[in-house]
Amino acid sequence: METVSTAKAFGGTQGVYRDASAATGTDMTFAVYVPDHAPGAKLPVVWYLSGLTCTHANVMDKGEYRRACAELGLIFVAPDTSPRGDGVPDDAEAAYDFGLGAGFYVDATQEPFAKNYRMWSYVTEELPALLAAEFPVDTARQSILGHSMGGHGALTIGLTYPDRYKAVSAFAPIVAPSEVPWGQKALPGYLGEDRAAWRKHDAVALIEDGARVADLLVDQGEADNFLAAQLQPERLEKACSDAGIKLTLRRQPGYDHSYFFISTFMADHLGWHAERLRK
Amino acid sequence: METVSTAKAFGGTQGVYRDASAATGTDMTFAVYVPDHAPGAKLPVVWYLSGLTCTHANVMDKGEYRRACAELGLIFVAPDTSPRGDGVPDDAEAAYDFGLGAGFYVDATQEPFAKNYRMWSYVTEELPALLAAEFPVDTARQSILGHSMGGHGALTIGLTYPDRYKAVSAFAPIVAPSEVPWGQKALPGYLGEDRAAWRKHDAVALIEDGARVADLLVDQGEADNFLAAQLQPERLEKACSDAGIKLTLRRQPGYDHSYFFISTFMADHLGWHAERLRK
Repeated sequence: METVSTAKAFGGTQGVYRDASAATGTDMTFAVYVPDHAPGAKLPVVWYLSGLTCTHANVMDKGEYRRACAELGLIFVAPDTSPRGDGVPDDAEAAYDFGLGAGFYVDATQEPFAKNYRMWSYVTEELPALLAAEFPVDTARQSILGHSMGGHGALTIGLTYPDRYKAVSAFAPIVAPSEVPWGQKALPGYLGEDRAAWRKHDAVALIEDGARVADLLVDQGEADNFLAAQLQPERLEKACSDAGIKLTLRRQPGYDHSYFFISTFMADHLGWHAERLRK
Repeated sequence: METVSTAKAFGGTQGVYRDASAATGTDMTFAVYVPDHAPGAKLPVVWYLSGLTCTHANVMDKGEYRRACAELGLIFVAPDTSPRGDGVPDDAEAAYDFGLGAGFYVDATQEPFAKNYRMWSYVTEELPALLAAEFPVDTARQSILGHSMGGHGALTIGLTYPDRYKAVSAFAPIVAPSEVPWGQKALPGYLGEDRAAWRKHDAVALIEDGARVADLLVDQGEADNFLAAQLQPERLEKACSDAGIKLTLRRQPGYDHSYFFISTFMADHLGWHAERLRK
């Protein structure tokens, strides 16, 4: 693992690191914030999955998570959103919603994406192992959150591994990608036309198929341009209601899809995670 | 005045605006955060001057000021650092420390810069008048802070108008530009070779020449790459000591020159400003 940069912030260390990923066959860059801690201590870790077009840097620059992580003693990890580099295939028209910057947290089965676009394995297996080896992480205390496409990633990963992630939350997540344009482009592109393969990567379908977590926290801006066409939180609301999952869905008047929205509620989410990580 | 963008954040509005500046002869872009407030209320305003290479956007994205401003009821204004646009002259070699992005908050007298590089007039006269006309600003309660070159701007402006700015603080400021390479390039470039003209744009010289404020707050990272060659806070320490100005200079171990440093201590500065703006 190569250290790209480190800087002291809120008493801890904000680092950027790079490692050759076996999962994606590329170098992958990621950001880790480690708060000040007692020597030898192992800290809980919060995974943050970013949205379309983002890298590790967007939330690092604009997410305003460090103060809360320092106060609560949380490590905060922000992976990239797709493989990148020479030879990594992109969307045919280089659109923002597929290919580079748009990995959708799946292991692609379709060519030419199957070789590199293995973000599910990278985020759920490879990077956790690297974190555990290189950082003072208590692997028994992990949680996950994300934004938009990364909210989709956080929900689907959290629902798949409810014992591993003690808390799951999202900002403006894609909750039912099978039913909306972003997902209806990404899921067949990466996974093929068989919709059965999509259900493991669709939070609402996962819940319909029996996946369970104790509770979920979702913030959704009411002025979000993507709300009606792409996000449709009412689908998650119905699935959780039917399944008996306690969903706290906060519709935030006036807020859009940006980091101005995310940063406003980041500390709330981290506090909610910290409560569940203490158990 | 044109509204470039607005977004809700921490209950208030983060906006970006553009106006044709008479001072610089160019369109100037600036950011304003207005917290939620009672209808008709006028709020105190904090001016933030940015450093070399920055625009209005750096502190808006990375400064983490909105939570504190919302809690304290402060308007936060971030101007650009130089004129920009077709025909605006730049450094001969397009270096980062002179010309575009490096206005040094002076009114240039030297050609070809005298026409556009009038950041002193823009920041101290034109933009305050625009703010007062367009935003709910209590002009009797203003304060100023800045970073690096913008710390220089905040100190020199605050020392020049001690009645107008109720608080003055800085992150890693250039305190004696006449004595360090950045200033020894910028000051003759904009103001000519007569060092007497530089003294009004040198915080230490201003204090030596009799300028006074009640107190100053300065944070300086000890791991700042520019500390020894460009910043030299001990010069400000001596000038304030000699002049009887109460300087709180906090040397912060391990912190660098970046927004990771600034964001860590931003809320401290805003709290310090708010105390003085209540008087």
